[in-house]
Amino acid sequence: MPPVCTPLDSQGEVDTASLARLVEHLIQGGVHGLFALGSTSEVVYLTDDQRATALRTVIDTAGGRLPVLAGVIDTTTARVAAHARTAAELGADAVVATAPFYTRTHGKEIAGHFRRLRQDVDLPLFAYDIPVSVQSKLSSALVRELAEDGTLAGVKDSSGDEGGLRRLLVELGGRDGRAHGAAPRFSVLTGSELTVDAALLAGVDGVVPGLGNVDPAGYVRLYDAARAGDWAGAAQEQERLVELFAMVDVGPEADMGRSSSALGAFKHALRLLGVIDDGATAFPQIPLSAGSVAEVAQRLRDAGLAPVR
Amino acid sequence: MPPVCTPLDSQGEVDTASLARLVEHLIQGGVHGLFALGSTSEVVYLTDDQRATALRTVIDTAGGRLPVLAGVIDTTTARVAAHARTAAELGADAVVATAPFYTRTHGKEIAGHFRRLRQDVDLPLFAYDIPVSVQSKLSSALVRELAEDGTLAGVKDSSGDEGGLRRLLVELGGRDGRAHGAAPRFSVLTGSELTVDAALLAGVDGVVPGLGNVDPAGYVRLYDAARAGDWAGAAQEQERLVELFAMVDVGPEADMGRSSSALGAFKHALRLLGVIDDGATAFPQIPLSAGSVAEVAQRLRDAGLAPVR
Amino acid sequence: MPPVCTPLDSQGEVDTASLARLVEHLIQGGVHGLFALGSTSEVVYLTDDQRATALRTVIDTAGGRLPVLAGVIDTTTARVAAHARTAAELGADAVVATAPFYTRTHGKEIAGHFRRLRQDVDLPLFAYDIPVSVQSKLSSALVRELAEDGTLAGVKDSSGDEGGLRRLLVELGGRDGRAHGAAPRFSVLTGSELTVDAALLAGVDGVVPGLGNVDPAGYVRLYDAARAGDWAGAAQEQERLVELFAMVDVGPEADMGRSSSALGAFKHALRLLGVIDDGATAFPQIPLSAGSVAEVAQRLRDAGLAPVR
Amino acid sequence: MPPVCTPLDSQGEVDTASLARLVEHLIQGGVHGLFALGSTSEVVYLTDDQRATALRTVIDTAGGRLPVLAGVIDTTTARVAAHARTAAELGADAVVATAPFYTRTHGKEIAGHFRRLRQDVDLPLFAYDIPVSVQSKLSSALVRELAEDGTLAGVKDSSGDEGGLRRLLVELGGRDGRAHGAAPRFSVLTGSELTVDAALLAGVDGVVPGLGNVDPAGYVRLYDAARAGDWAGAAQEQERLVELFAMVDVGPEADMGRSSSALGAFKHALRLLGVIDDGATAFPQIPLSAGSVAEVAQRLRDAGLAPVR
Repeated sequence: MPPVCTPLDSQGEVDTASLARLVEHLIQGGVHGLFALGSTSEVVYLTDDQRATALRTVIDTAGGRLPVLAGVIDTTTARVAAHARTAAELGADAVVATAPFYTRTHGKEIAGHFRRLRQDVDLPLFAYDIPVSVQSKLSSALVRELAEDGTLAGVKDSSGDEGGLRRLLVELGGRDGRAHGAAPRFSVLTGSELTVDAALLAGVDGVVPGLGNVDPAGYVRLYDAARAGDWAGAAQEQERLVELFAMVDVGPEADMGRSSSALGAFKHALRLLGVIDDGATAFPQIPLSAGSVAEVAQRLRDAGLAPVR
Repeated sequence: MPPVCTPLDSQGEVDTASLARLVEHLIQGGVHGLFALGSTSEVVYLTDDQRATALRTVIDTAGGRLPVLAGVIDTTTARVAAHARTAAELGADAVVATAPFYTRTHGKEIAGHFRRLRQDVDLPLFAYDIPVSVQSKLSSALVRELAEDGTLAGVKDSSGDEGGLRRLLVELGGRDGRAHGAAPRFSVLTGSELTVDAALLAGVDGVVPGLGNVDPAGYVRLYDAARAGDWAGAAQEQERLVELFAMVDVGPEADMGRSSSALGAFKHALRLLGVIDDGATAFPQIPLSAGSVAEVAQRLRDAGLAPVR
Repeated sequence: MPPVCTPLDSQGEVDTASLARLVEHLIQGGVHGLFALGSTSEVVYLTDDQRATALRTVIDTAGGRLPVLAGVIDTTTARVAAHARTAAELGADAVVATAPFYTRTHGKEIAGHFRRLRQDVDLPLFAYDIPVSVQSKLSSALVRELAEDGTLAGVKDSSGDEGGLRRLLVELGGRDGRAHGAAPRFSVLTGSELTVDAALLAGVDGVVPGLGNVDPAGYVRLYDAARAGDWAGAAQEQERLVELFAMVDVGPEADMGRSSSALGAFKHALRLLGVIDDGATAFPQIPLSAGSVAEVAQRLRDAGLAPVR
Repeated sequence: MPPVCTPLDSQGEVDTASLARLVEHLIQGGVHGLFALGSTSEVVYLTDDQRATALRTVIDTAGGRLPVLAGVIDTTTARVAAHARTAAELGADAVVATAPFYTRTHGKEIAGHFRRLRQDVDLPLFAYDIPVSVQSKLSSALVRELAEDGTLAGVKDSSGDEGGLRRLLVELGGRDGRAHGAAPRFSVLTGSELTVDAALLAGVDGVVPGLGNVDPAGYVRLYDAARAGDWAGAAQEQERLVELFAMVDVGPEADMGRSSSALGAFKHALRLLGVIDDGATAFPQIPLSAGSVAEVAQRLRDAGLAPVR
């Protein structure tokens, strides 16, 4: 269920034609759902109008073939709720919200935040656990409380705390208690790109890897191998994807932030593969140099993905 | 130049009548400017409409009697620029923007961010250095670069790094190089409530204390004593304000975040002093208990500020 | 390869009889090596004499039946080297050192640190990557550089960064490049207790779980299942151990630090299982309450480990 | 009361002749006390023997002309107590200890730590609040509790939290309550180099600036001006010292850690001034380049301190 990149044109506006092609690329790759307006989608760089344009394009292109989750990322409850209402109007199947950020918050406030959001908008609500961006970690006690009372339909764990994720999964019933049926009552998704085999072994329901934009079929193969119990095969596919992931290091730390280099690499890879027209990231991120783009192309070739331009 | 609290009614909407009274309270207290839509104003809790309502009320009530700076707080450049255009339309005298947040950014990106903002909106631009909220610190090299090329009109330092602030002030010319004229080319403001005497001794141009909502006259006395070279008097006034500031600790850590307790204390203090109608903070902040409110009242009495209700 | 707890008597001195019984308990449990004087051994709480007593006891009891790695934990190179010389004199098979701590260090300094240690002491050297304690993370580039030039015999990764660990493993050759022979040229060990199955799937050579003191046979079963390719069995055993691990939460956060509760739980579990005489942790850690000890006993029973007292 | 640098010879051993000259340099500069074996003394780089050599040299050279405080820096209580007993035997007038580090500690454990140290060693005990090194901040509630029960004789605040320091000072009685007599019952010292005037205005009893090694007379002038109520003069002296302090930036971040550049700058400055023989810092810190040393020399000249070599 990849977080869908948001292609931009040379003016910095959403390139809806490229975005539609990207959605088709992902669906052809076999993915089972789409996460629009996530961190990888550069959601915090987009104006409200641009967010709506991107989400509408993803939903329209998907055309009901697979569910679309919409990120509703903003600082606090009232602002998030406004995004959630827009997502509902545009036809999203679920919304994904973080804890409050910028401000200094607290577990009791975070619980109130999610409960209010669930009351305000009649869509399944996922909690997005991303402490690197919001500076607070959702405790497993809080997630379970909000799972049990029906506030949350699931959690997307981008915390990088694999031990904590494992504890949560065991507390939620473990592999045996969770392995039945296509639609679990409470879904645990991981945002990891590098430990997807491990997360599936631990019992997550789905994976939301940014790199899945570039190689959706690879992640689907990994997922299918894991679901079939072929863990060695899953690990082998994961290793190939780990090597491909190294493209995120192309931008020198002295010159740009981690968002610029990682998202620039993904978008240039998509351009090189002929999926989108421009590798540009949103301002004020720094564009990749020609040398960095050449490195991205090499990473693609090494992983068996031939650039077409 | 206090950051103006945003009084809310029982529905969580901006209480414009209370806000107008608060502005009068501040002006009567002798302050030299107003900072609307800052962190203390709960800006990140307010929708765009609520932000506009609050800013319009502050500007209209001020009526040109003193300058109004407007916070334009959002995650990245395009979103911040939209707020800045609104602030310009509403008649703000300057805008105050942070570095990008939520995303992982970089000095070069932050520089581009401020330059683009300055180009997009024809108002003096202040950089708001608040790492506790945005997770990056503005380096003194960056601030000086943006001061020298005219991008920034000033910086509001809420970093808590008093040593770094001192280095910046010395690099900008020190007390002697900065002490001339009512309108410095580049203004350095501190967000501290507790070390205002020290900051003035170090050469800052102004102070933006959240507690200034509660006792504007006290901070003006402190400022005037410092400007008159009466440092012992300034320190004495500062000590009284340090004791008053302890009201921010009323909310138990087990029950609420730091924003809830500090802003709740300020707003209840203003209510107890008869300035605003309700001490409520924006959702999902936790309301103060009756016991906590009683503590706030006691802090006021101890500081010589008699509650009227 | 568990990090061996250091039992203490009521005077806070090393209880060598209990320690010898613990070593036998681990060997009977089937472990393949012992890590003495690690963080779980409370190494930083022990005086130099106590460290020597503990290490001597472990080495003498092991009697060559399995290798003993010795932690040589101190702030900087000269101090670490002194511990390493003692470890060599006492007959340790390898030493395990962290990056410098307390001071503000740098990758180039860390590289020099490990190289000097390797020159000074003729024993295999493992790098101990534990940013929660030393505030710096060993980069994969640094680890590979020190692996390739022969400085390091391996790394013990207690960083919690499973994605980074996976990248390191792939860069070192991946599962296929690393899966041959009993003695890899460069060993990657994980300190995780909760994701051991995942780490083995990713290709680590060994695991160093603190909880392995309490249930060495469980971790050996998990290891054996993974080595046999029975990943579902490994995951099932891991889940049982995740539930057992919850004993570390017995100490209320309001009353004690995380070291007190986790190490107190491990030591009381060993006491309840009849392995050691006293559950005391080193001063100034806070002792567990009777209620907390009862919780530990219940965790043992739930995991199929019957207390004998 | 400067933290005394520890000059090293080309073998990395304590250069006692240079250290004795440094102590004379400081005494001639007019300082009121000496802090040996602090962070600036590279205490965590020195073996136990080197620590004893350095402390003995400082105490012997001081010869009772002024008090000598001894840092007793180590991870936990038993290890710190051993250093404290050595310091007592060598004749130190007081000891200075941090909270436990490397391990995850807690306020109650920290309180027990200081109380045990005070019982074990019959010397006045100062708490060293240095979160950048030990990862925990001493709360003002804890400091006051330990002040009131006689555990602590004082606190050295190197936290950089000037607002918190001001709150502590006010809680301890403020300027008026603390301004009487040469020997306060409880001493508050600041480790700041850059805000000494402000700290004295706030009511600290003394200052422990690393840069005081290089220019003790400058800090004494600053102190004297402040004590005489000449705050403008104090601020002017502080500004000169802020400019001198910029020498700590000579080492490029890409090449060395902050300890290497700052301590290397101080030691080379002392060498250039003819006080000590070698500018070397302890291994594995990185030596300054010739270009960096030239920058240090220029900083000295700019501050009116002429290099003699």
